[in-house]
Amino acid sequence: MTNGYIELDHGSGGIASNELISSMIIGRLDNEFLRLMEDSAVMDLPGTRIAFTTDSYVVDPIFFPGGDIGSLAVHGTVNDLSMRGAIPRYLTLSLILEEGLPMDHLKRIIDSAADAAGHAEVIVVAGDTKVVPRGHADKIFINTSGIGIVPPGISVSTHDARPGDVILVNGNIGDHGMAILACREGLSFTSPIKSDSAPLNSLVSTLLKAAPNSVHCLRDPTRGGVATALNEIAINSGVTALIEEDCLPFTASVKSASEMLGLDPLYAANEGKVLVFASADEAPQILTAMKGHRLGKAAQIIGRVTARSAAPVFIKTRVGGTRILPMLTGEQLPRIC
Amino acid sequence: MTNGYIELDHGSGGIASNELISSMIIGRLDNEFLRLMEDSAVMDLPGTRIAFTTDSYVVDPIFFPGGDIGSLAVHGTVNDLSMRGAIPRYLTLSLILEEGLPMDHLKRIIDSAADAAGHAEVIVVAGDTKVVPRGHADKIFINTSGIGIVPPGISVSTHDARPGDVILVNGNIGDHGMAILACREGLSFTSPIKSDSAPLNSLVSTLLKAAPNSVHCLRDPTRGGVATALNEIAINSGVTALIEEDCLPFTASVKSASEMLGLDPLYAANEGKVLVFASADEAPQILTAMKGHRLGKAAQIIGRVTARSAAPVFIKTRVGGTRILPMLTGEQLPRIC
Repeated sequence: MTNGYIELDHGSGGIASNELISSMIIGRLDNEFLRLMEDSAVMDLPGTRIAFTTDSYVVDPIFFPGGDIGSLAVHGTVNDLSMRGAIPRYLTLSLILEEGLPMDHLKRIIDSAADAAGHAEVIVVAGDTKVVPRGHADKIFINTSGIGIVPPGISVSTHDARPGDVILVNGNIGDHGMAILACREGLSFTSPIKSDSAPLNSLVSTLLKAAPNSVHCLRDPTRGGVATALNEIAINSGVTALIEEDCLPFTASVKSASEMLGLDPLYAANEGKVLVFASADEAPQILTAMKGHRLGKAAQIIGRVTARSAAPVFIKTRVGGTRILPMLTGEQLPRIC
Repeated sequence: MTNGYIELDHGSGGIASNELISSMIIGRLDNEFLRLMEDSAVMDLPGTRIAFTTDSYVVDPIFFPGGDIGSLAVHGTVNDLSMRGAIPRYLTLSLILEEGLPMDHLKRIIDSAADAAGHAEVIVVAGDTKVVPRGHADKIFINTSGIGIVPPGISVSTHDARPGDVILVNGNIGDHGMAILACREGLSFTSPIKSDSAPLNSLVSTLLKAAPNSVHCLRDPTRGGVATALNEIAINSGVTALIEEDCLPFTASVKSASEMLGLDPLYAANEGKVLVFASADEAPQILTAMKGHRLGKAAQIIGRVTARSAAPVFIKTRVGGTRILPMLTGEQLPRIC
C-alpha cells in the first residue's frame, strides 16, 4: 500500500492482498474465526434450525446521511435473518473494489461495518476481496451473507399472514429511499432526511417475547417499499391487506421530498423498518412493546388482514375512498441499496 | 421482460424483479427452501459444527473453455467448504447485473450454476439480484456463500501442516489461469487449454475416508496459484515446504502458454485442484485413493514439509539447485476468478 488508493495488486491473492486484508480488514473485524484466514470459518452452532441469507449492496452514493454501504450491508443481512425470527450470529463480508477507490473510503466503510456488527452483536467470520480495473465496477460493492439461529417454537413467514391479523410498522416510512434520492439530487430540507438504516434483531426479539405465539409474519420493506412488501405477503399468504392512509407515519421532510420529486413514499425503500402481522387480540401488547424500544417510538397499527378479496392490497385514502395499492412497477430508483 | 436484455426494472424489487427471478432463477434452481422467496431460508442442520464461506466472482470473460462464471461460482464455494473437511450443503447466489446484459447469457449462466450445484449435491437456498446502470459494473458479478457440515472427528486447517508431512496435488497445475489468459489473448494451441473448474467435495471425501487421521491440511490453490498457497500454509503452520520441480504435473499446452506469455504456472490460478498435506506413512494410500477418483488421475506427490528453515517455501529445480519460491508479488492477472 504505497499510495492511498486501491490498486489491482490488492486483488491478486498475493502479498498486496494479504497486506490489505491484514491491515485494513482483519484488524478491524477481528475475531477467533476470521483471524485464521482459512478458506471457510468453522464454528459450533448451538441449535439445529438455522436461517441463511445473502444480499449484495450497490448503493450510490456510498456515503449518505444516516449511514454508508458498510453499515447498510450489515444491517440488511441482520434484518433478513431477523425477519424469520432468527437470532443473527455469523456474517460473511465480500468486497468488489474498483481500482482507484481511495483507501480512506475503504477504511471508513470497514469501520462502519465493524461498528454495525458490534451493535447488532454479530461477527464477521469469513470474507473475500476482489479488485476490478477502473470502470469495471463503481467504487465498491459489498455482499454480506448471514447465519442465524431460529429458537425452538419460533415460526414466522410471509406465507403465514391470516385474516383477522393487524398490521403494524415500527416507525416512519420511506426514509432510506428518500435520503438517498435527496442526496443524489442535492435537495436540502430544514430537517435533513436521514436513512433509517438500523439492525432490527433487538426489536424483533422484544416483540417476539411480548407475544410469542401471535406474531405470524415479519418483513422489512426494503426495495419496492411498504406497498411492494405488503403485496408480496398478501400474495404469499392468499389474503388481502387493507391499510389506512391516515395511520401511515411519515416525517414532514419525507412528505416534502415526495411532493417535490413526485414519488410515493410507500414505494421508497426502508432499511430499519419491519412490517408485523399479528393476531388482533395481542396487537396492543405488541404495539406497547415496540413503542418501548429505541427503534419503535413511532410505531403504528396501519391496517388489517381480511380473506382474499378483489386484490392483494387496498389502501383507504384520507378522503375516504378505497383503491388498489399495486406492487411497484418499473424502476423507481436504481442502486438504492 | 419485453426484450432480450436486462433492464434497470429487473432490479427494482417490484414486478419486473419478481418476474425475472421466478422465470429465470427459481425455476432452474428450484427447491423447497428457495421456492418460498423469503428474506432468509430456514433449514434443519444435522450436526452442530459448520463451515461457512463466501466468494465473489468477477471473472472476465464470463464464458471460457471449461466453464463460465456460474459454474465457477458454485465450484469455488463448494471447494472452500471442502478445504475444511466439511460436506457442502447449502449455497446462496447473489447477482450483480449490468443493465444491457443479454438475457440468454444470464440464462446460460444460471443453467450452468444449477448443473454445477446438482453435480456437487448442494442446493441454492437463498439469493439476491441487483441491477446497476450500464457502465457501473461489467456484465455480471456473482457472489456465492455456503454452509457445510463438518463431520465429527474431522479437523483440517492451513495451520496444521507438520514436519514430516508429504505434499500431494490431485493433477495438472495452472489450467484455469492459463485458460482465461489464453482466451483473453486469443491464443490457440493444438490441445486447447481448458479450465480445471470442478467441485472437489467428492475427492476430498474419498481421501479423508482413505486416511481419516493423517490428512492435516487441504487448500485449493486459486488466485496466486500453488506457490502462494504453499507460502500461506507454511507461514500459518510455521514450517517449510520443499517442492520438487520435476514432480510438478503440467500439461504440454500450459507449458507452451507459460513460455509464450512469460508467466510461471506455479502462480496461475487453479479451480479444481487441492494441495494435501498428510503424514508420510499414509501418503501411498492417499495417492492411490486420489488416482482412483475421476479428479485425481494425474495426482502426484510434489514435496515434503520440514521444520521452518530460512524461508517458508523452497523449490528444488530440475538442474538440481534449490531456490526460494516466494508468494505472488504484484497482480499477475486481474479478474481471473
